[in-house]
Amino acid sequence: MALEQSGYIGAVLERLSAAGVRVGDRIRVVRGSGEFTGILMPRAQIGADPDHVVVKLDSGYNIGIRVDSNTTVKRLKSPKRVKQSREAVLTPNESLPTVAVLSTGGTIASRVDYQTGAVNPALSAQDLYEAVPELQSHANIRARVVMSKFSEDITPADWATIAKRTAREIRNGADGVVIAHGTDTLALTAAALSFSLQNLPVPVVLVGSQRSSDRPSSDAALNLVAAVDVAGRADAAEVLLVMHGETDDTFTLAHRGTRARKCHTSRRDAFQSINASPVFRVESSEITEMSPPLYRRDPTRRLRVKAKFDDHVALIKMYPGLKPDVIEYLISAGYRGIVLEGTGLGHTPQSIHLAVKQAIDAGVVVAMTSQCIWGRVDMNVYRSGVKLLDIGVVPCQDMLPETALVKLMWLLANTKHIEAARRAMAMPLVGEISYRTELVVSGTGGSE
Amino acid sequence: MALEQSGYIGAVLERLSAAGVRVGDRIRVVRGSGEFTGILMPRAQIGADPDHVVVKLDSGYNIGIRVDSNTTVKRLKSPKRVKQSREAVLTPNESLPTVAVLSTGGTIASRVDYQTGAVNPALSAQDLYEAVPELQSHANIRARVVMSKFSEDITPADWATIAKRTAREIRNGADGVVIAHGTDTLALTAAALSFSLQNLPVPVVLVGSQRSSDRPSSDAALNLVAAVDVAGRADAAEVLLVMHGETDDTFTLAHRGTRARKCHTSRRDAFQSINASPVFRVESSEITEMSPPLYRRDPTRRLRVKAKFDDHVALIKMYPGLKPDVIEYLISAGYRGIVLEGTGLGHTPQSIHLAVKQAIDAGVVVAMTSQCIWGRVDMNVYRSGVKLLDIGVVPCQDMLPETALVKLMWLLANTKHIEAARRAMAMPLVGEISYRTELVVSGTGGSE
Repeated sequence: MALEQSGYIGAVLERLSAAGVRVGDRIRVVRGSGEFTGILMPRAQIGADPDHVVVKLDSGYNIGIRVDSNTTVKRLKSPKRVKQSREAVLTPNESLPTVAVLSTGGTIASRVDYQTGAVNPALSAQDLYEAVPELQSHANIRARVVMSKFSEDITPADWATIAKRTAREIRNGADGVVIAHGTDTLALTAAALSFSLQNLPVPVVLVGSQRSSDRPSSDAALNLVAAVDVAGRADAAEVLLVMHGETDDTFTLAHRGTRARKCHTSRRDAFQSINASPVFRVESSEITEMSPPLYRRDPTRRLRVKAKFDDHVALIKMYPGLKPDVIEYLISAGYRGIVLEGTGLGHTPQSIHLAVKQAIDAGVVVAMTSQCIWGRVDMNVYRSGVKLLDIGVVPCQDMLPETALVKLMWLLANTKHIEAARRAMAMPLVGEISYRTELVVSGTGGSE
Repeated sequence: MALEQSGYIGAVLERLSAAGVRVGDRIRVVRGSGEFTGILMPRAQIGADPDHVVVKLDSGYNIGIRVDSNTTVKRLKSPKRVKQSREAVLTPNESLPTVAVLSTGGTIASRVDYQTGAVNPALSAQDLYEAVPELQSHANIRARVVMSKFSEDITPADWATIAKRTAREIRNGADGVVIAHGTDTLALTAAALSFSLQNLPVPVVLVGSQRSSDRPSSDAALNLVAAVDVAGRADAAEVLLVMHGETDDTFTLAHRGTRARKCHTSRRDAFQSINASPVFRVESSEITEMSPPLYRRDPTRRLRVKAKFDDHVALIKMYPGLKPDVIEYLISAGYRGIVLEGTGLGHTPQSIHLAVKQAIDAGVVVAMTSQCIWGRVDMNVYRSGVKLLDIGVVPCQDMLPETALVKLMWLLANTKHIEAARRAMAMPLVGEISYRTELVVSGTGGSE
């Protein structure tokens, strides 16, 4: 990375240039009695103190060091990379399960490129496997590269590809499949596979990491080993998502594919199950069931794949001042579905009620979720909700907005009639909705 | 409400019709040895057991009762409403602070209308005061009705009205102002007032409730009393939002107006401070400081009001399959600002990079927040972020997406040049952004 694009300016930029240093170089900075050796990092922080350089120490921590007349900066020779064997020799161990690990890209399969200062998705699932050699003692691994994408670039068409490649591994006898994937849209791919892979005989486990695998603080190894354990051994047959359970390297949680959400930009325990309990907790390879899986492992079950998605579905978040024009545009552009992220219990400003009605009259399926994230849409409480129900908006109960988006894309591609899509939208198919428990007296009396 | 629209169907509907019962009527249901008296509620639950009626017992709890040949349903005469005095006699107590309570509508000022089964915003702040008579011992109250709206219908123009009415009360000598408001968009109005009311001498406290004040489980009283306490006595001069701190009726929290978010559709402790600590905790009228307020109370400070908002700003959430067309539409429709709710650290699909560039080239301010909610946008880590920074997207650090929306609406109406709006967007004005703390060595050495 050229120094000019690295965030350094003014006097510091001049000092670095004079020392012939570029971002990614190994440097030594001496200031007073302090001496710091490490890699020069780009400035991540806009508007931060411009008199400092940021150095990644060998311990993995970044340090900011003031550069002034008392500071010297020297470029060091970079140590040679240790060349690793590209092909580990794998002798199948018959006592271990066989797990296919499909790589799609993302941080879990990535290394920091210090020349550009950015993180690139790695190219090979084999790289991933080499990074975590202890996997050998957990399963016989079949590593495959499906694609190499940051997860923000994963499309509904990619979901279809991943579903089909997963199905191929299962039909070829895998005891479980792990999918390494970026975390940004990990939960949406998990939801897509949950709807696409029907009648699963074995678990399909998505896994990511929040810190790239060459960083000392990486969560990649713990997550990957746990994902392989769940895929190979857990008594479940559904789509799960395995990530750190807390910030320390202690345990992981397996979330239901339709219930997981990334709730922090950078923490290792960013993922949470929303409106549901996680399914498993994994600690030191011990798998503890926290809530019953949808289905138990059953190798005789015949997998069905329905991997079509209609991407003419939009997710629109409600806010004050929202005008009907965007919805009018979506109708005119031929969109077939709209998922609203309503306020509170599932409301929109009155100003868009007419546009929502026009959309439904034009055959667009309009579904309501809540931007609160936690809780449940209940459109019978307030006038706005009652009105929207009258118009024909489908209430999505306690389903996540992102899961509702994926589900509607999937339903519109896999049902013949809009009415069937509307009905299915409000019903639980793979654990994405749970009905509210209400106090019901069904016996011959009593007030229990 | 007509029975046909109440959710009841089939045999149960026939039985209710035969008994001459409508939703909202007081009824007695006898089933075996059990006898239940209460108000017939509409069915809130789509697709739930159709053989039950839902009755709100006098205890406030709803109960579902199976209706079959062993059940009798009888309509009772409704008890007369006790007429309350409309005008409480208020003798100012000079030892108490003077607090203006402005009512804008919402659940905190509402009662369930059992004729329609829905909740309506009440008309008068006086009603609110009558509902919580103990307020008299906390402050001299000036109750005013500003508007009567559900908060999903509050617009940026309403923010301006509320700001001006708040300013009038402060200029008339109030020691603090409380604004009763629906919870759906409570946090956005709080953010709008945070930017609009500059150089505040006293606190401005927004308050809502999640359950209407005539329900036994209502949080209205505790929240309102705490809000009046904070407005009248807390040593702070900023916009705060007071709501329950936990599900029990024990304590409330005062969140910074730019940091609060409704994180549950129905829980009483739905509001959380995001990426920040609450400012105060209030328990039994004792106010404990949890983090320093932005400014201390100072009656000599001269309030400035900047209450204009440009509502040609859109909030767009990123998701797989997002097409550039919506952004292209916003450009053509003359929008002046777009807040992106990016994935992860602040990413979009590559598919919209070009449209984002076109927007910026056309003079639209495009700002990046994270849909993760917690954490911080950092666009220097991955290629997508670096690219978007190059294009000119403004990173909003750890600012909430909703706060960023309000801020951009406000900046575009109150700055002369787009460049000033862009710069201010990335800088903290009223606690909406905190800079990351980085390990900085500024002394003469050492590795602390």
